[in-house]
Amino acid sequence: MRSGDPIALHALTAFDAAAGIRAGTVSAAALVEALLARIRTVDPRLEAWVHVDESARAPAAERDAEARRGAIRGPLHGVPVGIKDIFHVAGMPTRAGAGPFAHTTPADDATSVKRLRAAGAIVLGKTHTTEFAFRDPAPTRNPWNRDHTPGGSSSGSGAGVAARMVPLALGSQTVGSVLRPAAYCGVVGLKPTHGLVSADGVIPLAWSLDHVGVFARTVADAALTLGVLAGRSIDVTPTSTPRLALAPELSARAEADVAGQVSAAASAFARAGAVVEEVKLPASFAELHEAGQRVLEAEAAAYHEPTYRDHASEYREGMRELIKTGLAQPVTTYVRANRARLRFRDDVMPVLAAYDALLSPTAPTPAPRGLAWTGDASLCAPWSFSGAPSISLPSGLAASGLPYAIQLTSAAGDEARLLRTAAWCERLLAFSLEPAC
Amino acid sequence: MRSGDPIALHALTAFDAAAGIRAGTVSAAALVEALLARIRTVDPRLEAWVHVDESARAPAAERDAEARRGAIRGPLHGVPVGIKDIFHVAGMPTRAGAGPFAHTTPADDATSVKRLRAAGAIVLGKTHTTEFAFRDPAPTRNPWNRDHTPGGSSSGSGAGVAARMVPLALGSQTVGSVLRPAAYCGVVGLKPTHGLVSADGVIPLAWSLDHVGVFARTVADAALTLGVLAGRSIDVTPTSTPRLALAPELSARAEADVAGQVSAAASAFARAGAVVEEVKLPASFAELHEAGQRVLEAEAAAYHEPTYRDHASEYREGMRELIKTGLAQPVTTYVRANRARLRFRDDVMPVLAAYDALLSPTAPTPAPRGLAWTGDASLCAPWSFSGAPSISLPSGLAASGLPYAIQLTSAAGDEARLLRTAAWCERLLAFSLEPAC
Repeated sequence: MRSGDPIALHALTAFDAAAGIRAGTVSAAALVEALLARIRTVDPRLEAWVHVDESARAPAAERDAEARRGAIRGPLHGVPVGIKDIFHVAGMPTRAGAGPFAHTTPADDATSVKRLRAAGAIVLGKTHTTEFAFRDPAPTRNPWNRDHTPGGSSSGSGAGVAARMVPLALGSQTVGSVLRPAAYCGVVGLKPTHGLVSADGVIPLAWSLDHVGVFARTVADAALTLGVLAGRSIDVTPTSTPRLALAPELSARAEADVAGQVSAAASAFARAGAVVEEVKLPASFAELHEAGQRVLEAEAAAYHEPTYRDHASEYREGMRELIKTGLAQPVTTYVRANRARLRFRDDVMPVLAAYDALLSPTAPTPAPRGLAWTGDASLCAPWSFSGAPSISLPSGLAASGLPYAIQLTSAAGDEARLLRTAAWCERLLAFSLEPAC
Repeated sequence: MRSGDPIALHALTAFDAAAGIRAGTVSAAALVEALLARIRTVDPRLEAWVHVDESARAPAAERDAEARRGAIRGPLHGVPVGIKDIFHVAGMPTRAGAGPFAHTTPADDATSVKRLRAAGAIVLGKTHTTEFAFRDPAPTRNPWNRDHTPGGSSSGSGAGVAARMVPLALGSQTVGSVLRPAAYCGVVGLKPTHGLVSADGVIPLAWSLDHVGVFARTVADAALTLGVLAGRSIDVTPTSTPRLALAPELSARAEADVAGQVSAAASAFARAGAVVEEVKLPASFAELHEAGQRVLEAEAAAYHEPTYRDHASEYREGMRELIKTGLAQPVTTYVRANRARLRFRDDVMPVLAAYDALLSPTAPTPAPRGLAWTGDASLCAPWSFSGAPSISLPSGLAASGLPYAIQLTSAAGDEARLLRTAAWCERLLAFSLEPAC
């Protein structure tokens, strides 16, 4: 538990909740009750949840009983989690943000959900997603300002964690679907190296690019959860001041206030002892965005083709266009696009490996106004397309009252380094504001 | 140098040649002279070489002078190599087994050729390939029987090393283009993990499947060369008796005499102390062959499309059909095929990792009669399609006088284990016959 004012039960971090449950100072049942109450209060105005599982009270009571006799299942014992509604959760409907043609009720958990449960976590419900995790928006609103998008596609997971309706949530990122909503909602969003966490039981958007990711309110919580998902514990104690890279090409893609906010963060890190150096991205970066789009279209089309044949008119516009474009794509275009994508991956890894992390904006602007557009994913995309692990940290509030964020990226396989660096940066950013929702 | 009868200079292994040159007992210039003489004698009947570089005498004399003053460039100092004619060698024409429309004279060496030269090797010339490393045959004949194919696509490299015209040669394998000709010609053929050796400067057939490989007459020579290509030395001293897996599904694809020969080898290994266990390939093996073919077609089409538009009629039949089929392939077919291929890769790696190597036939039969067909690659294909390192070792002579071979495969990245196991097996096979060409 933190020092100072007592923290409302619903606002506990996963780390503190788990520690409290283990120590007997927090009850998992009371925590679930507090979160259900919080959801009743704030979710009607935010719509983060597509399905809230009231029956989560039973496993919570069970975790408490286990804790009393010292039978701790794992590092998330008794901690409630929200699950993006493209992940299968046994016995709960998977709607994927789509119409009834796509609804199923799976018998098995997705592998990632299974891992969370095995570590003691309690599934509190399913969070809203854009249709099939592409761009047709969810009903969810931004907890900092209901007139703004929470970002997508993991809209409900971002808003739910920001609005203290749940301490942790799973999301998925194919272009910018974890880090962008995390940035817009003022929480931590993490996606590991492509393939590190199994996407089995998650409806694919584009299997070469799909990553399972985590929403949390602290780096420690994100690291704890990733450790469970990846099957290994990750120590985030910073061992030394980090070496950071800054790519002017990326900051140039952000609006002036966002770029300035990233510069200010870089200066603060440098003052605290970090080495900050400018780097150039490899020439193959020029082709990456186009290449990633072609891969996304073709792979989405390959997965949806059989359903699309029977239900084309039931798909929403963005998804329908994506599938149509993908189906019309010449195979040679896809082959060349995938090769260009992997060339960038191979070219950029030594650049990333020379630093603890690359610092950049997570998105070109804070959360845009309106709910029709989930925002610009272009600054998250390079790391989805190359598979490098990346994390978004809230870094301040804009004059509009919406959160700013920074993105850190490390070389493939280096999540421990990424998270150590993020933990070091987090302490200097000291972002502890809550949305007044 | 070996004990017993003196070995003709042209028949020296790379290892013995390099050791002799370093010790001053072998002259690189004399070795090049002996090989040029051997080529003049036997190549008119075998046609392994598309270009012999008489000017190799100059670097050979240079390597001798360097050796005299102790300036050894690397582990292949003074050792002549043959290069398959889809690799670029600076200043030599690259013809790729194709018509004049495809001929170029590159200014730079392929990365692999550059690495061999940096280690002191001397390029003796270019060896015949099937057209663009696919199936339209080269003129090369099998040194054991001129009426039989040497296999393809690295036909000249296989025949050249077998006929003692060069101790080492580079080849490439997309389906079965290194191990199959090695098996048919009675030499060692090795392809490492996909991506371990750069294919830069090699005309692609299908970039997801293309592997740079090595032809040699001993496992030690193959390991020495791979070490140079991969930039790390590989110790092949067997550390213990190996654990070998045997997949009845693979042996069942071979003709009875070949399957029997593999069983006999397995028994010999078991008598010498090896553990030999039967394993089942994962269910995803059923889709692999089809999936690999689709990937091959689409990627070949993607590379050749621009040239094909202007020169369709100049391509030979096999290659023309391949490109045509690839161009007509729906993108969704390719996406699913590549996914099926990678599913097999992910499924089979734990099976491979549980053993030092999987033992199987390299090809269903010894070298087929006739030159029109380069033979059946289906038993090499699983390891090209999954990227696992594999090696073919000569294992005896059939009643027809043609070589038998066995194939060993290890998990991705485990080439050291593969080569140690192969060295252990090689000593028991004791294959030292030479073709009487």
